[in-house]
Amino acid sequence: MIGRLNHVAIAVRDLDAAVATYRDTLGATVKPPLPQPEHGVTVVFVELPNSKIELMSPLGEDSPIAAFVERNPGGGIHHVCYEVDDILAARDKLKAQGARVLGTGEPKIGAHGKPVLFLHPKDFLGTLVELEQV
Amino acid sequence: MIGRLNHVAIAVRDLDAAVATYRDTLGATVKPPLPQPEHGVTVVFVELPNSKIELMSPLGEDSPIAAFVERNPGGGIHHVCYEVDDILAARDKLKAQGARVLGTGEPKIGAHGKPVLFLHPKDFLGTLVELEQV
Repeated sequence: MIGRLNHVAIAVRDLDAAVATYRDTLGATVKPPLPQPEHGVTVVFVELPNSKIELMSPLGEDSPIAAFVERNPGGGIHHVCYEVDDILAARDKLKAQGARVLGTGEPKIGAHGKPVLFLHPKDFLGTLVELEQV
Repeated sequence: MIGRLNHVAIAVRDLDAAVATYRDTLGATVKPPLPQPEHGVTVVFVELPNSKIELMSPLGEDSPIAAFVERNPGGGIHHVCYEVDDILAARDKLKAQGARVLGTGEPKIGAHGKPVLFLHPKDFLGTLVELEQV
């Protein structure tokens, strides 16, 4: 069911410092920051030859990553994102197997403008999993 | 400097359950377990079209992931691995910038039979980073 590893997301408090780590220290190609007020985050994509790292920092009052960044002030891996062809079929198959889909269970339009869902980390080896329809 | 995202490693206590999660629930292609006594882990590679997930569980008395699995009994992301062309050049550039290389600082032969080094998570956004020379 799952396809490509679309990205690994790392949440940080200080996005400028995170950009410097990936651009200057690790020598990767880093895109400009994209504020996404509707998602409560500012994201920066690190472009690797086969995948992406998504650096994220909280934006606004009710950021969904505020608590994570509070718990992990130095940053930490927040989620992994796998691509699927049909997100509703994927959701229904996962729910039928007992996996928990977060939120309402209806896909939202994610940071890349495509439908996404998040799966409960307790059902996926302690890893928050995003599914993105491509 | 860094190239492809070689893999994301997830450490778990119960490798059979982790395999079932990726093979049966997420429908991915999962390879047979590879015991690596010299690394204190058993690994299973999940083959995605563009990258890999490495599922790891402790093997033997002094596994380097024993404490991690103790702290994260349900599992958790343990590290990410980036490919580099020249691991000694990468190490020296990183050290010159103040980044900490774990262990002796000399590359070891990793789970894939290639030279690897690990970088201190406090210098890389709370993320343990493995570099692998390809």
